Amino acid sequence: MSSTQDIDALIDMMAKLPGLGPRSARRAVLHLIRKRALLLTPLADTMQTVAATARECLNCGNIGTADICDICTANKRANGEICVVEDVSDLWAMERSGVFHGRYHVLGGTLSALDAIGPQELRIPRLIDRVATEEVTEVILALNATIDGQTTAHYIADQLEGQVTLTSLAQGVPIGGELDYLDDGTITAAMLARKKL
Amino acid sequence: MSSTQDIDALIDMMAKLPGLGPRSARRAVLHLIRKRALLLTPLADTMQTVAATARECLNCGNIGTADICDICTANKRANGEICVVEDVSDLWAMERSGVFHGRYHVLGGTLSALDAIGPQELRIPRLIDRVATEEVTEVILALNATIDGQTTAHYIADQLEGQVTLTSLAQGVPIGGELDYLDDGTITAAMLARKKL
Ligand SMILES: [Zn+2]
Ligand SMILES: [Zn+2]
Repeated sequence: MSSTQDIDALIDMMAKLPGLGPRSARRAVLHLIRKRALLLTPLADTMQTVAATARECLNCGNIGTADICDICTANKRANGEICVVEDVSDLWAMERSGVFHGRYHVLGGTLSALDAIGPQELRIPRLIDRVATEEVTEVILALNATIDGQTTAHYIADQLEGQVTLTSLAQGVPIGGELDYLDDGTITAAMLARKKL
Repeated sequence: MSSTQDIDALIDMMAKLPGLGPRSARRAVLHLIRKRALLLTPLADTMQTVAATARECLNCGNIGTADICDICTANKRANGEICVVEDVSDLWAMERSGVFHGRYHVLGGTLSALDAIGPQELRIPRLIDRVATEEVTEVILALNATIDGQTTAHYIADQLEGQVTLTSLAQGVPIGGELDYLDDGTITAAMLARKKL
């Protein structure tokens, strides 16, 4: 048994994170070990806290630390508009742009025949339920400009037709582009010029 | 106070790691939260353990979990050869190549007039001490092929001249190259063809 096995294990775990690899994991771990009081211990503590408290909002699918998330409970936000996104990272991208002040609905992916992901695998039934029970006037379909994203947007539009105003983000989102890769200005422009379906 | 402040804090800490940035940190944290039982909790636990146990070897500067590291205490390794490297990441790169079976000495950097790093700021006095007290027959200067690395190698060679056989890694290390970026085969070839200074 090597006494460095915990260090090796730490490098292996870090190397599997998206965006990292073996070399960057080794560098990150060395950096953390050198500044263990300043960086490693606080990082470990915060991870423990997040692991113990983070959960998906039962209403919208956003990640927070309560059964119902901050955005769903915020009094300041408008009730009439729901912005539908694929993923929490897209919600974060929308929030960074600061252009939207309504509520969200995080689908948790897109419809995909190839991956056998149907409406039941996503948070689509819950969205239909929200539109029926909350006082919703507009559903903004802010899905990625990918084939699966647009297929999903059309499916949702079909389900909600006649019940609510349906809009999508304006042209301005690049073809094949993903929200999380856009700058805040592009998101703001696309949001302000959103058009009826 | 936002209930997501721990998540935000976690993203900020991850974003400051070498090789990561805000976007990859957000993706990594979302990934960890989604698999918190499988990934986040074990990662946090391992970080806690490493933060509590990792330390620099008092003899050679390698990172381990005891006052004297595994490599310094291993009976299987040859005593006569000391391989001098700048950084623990270089020691790890040498070990991955599997070509060297002696001991190491980690300087902790290179001499640098610009950054006011002299011999006392590095582990050079300790190296001179080891050569004088251990039964060392060869010191292999495996420093990076950078100007500072080569300046440091020449300084050490001057200090140890006449006391021990001094070698350096063979040509084969690219000009301006750093050990940690080389493939194992290049390191092996350079080690096997090492030459006397
Ligand atoms: Zn919510
Ligand atoms: Zn050691």
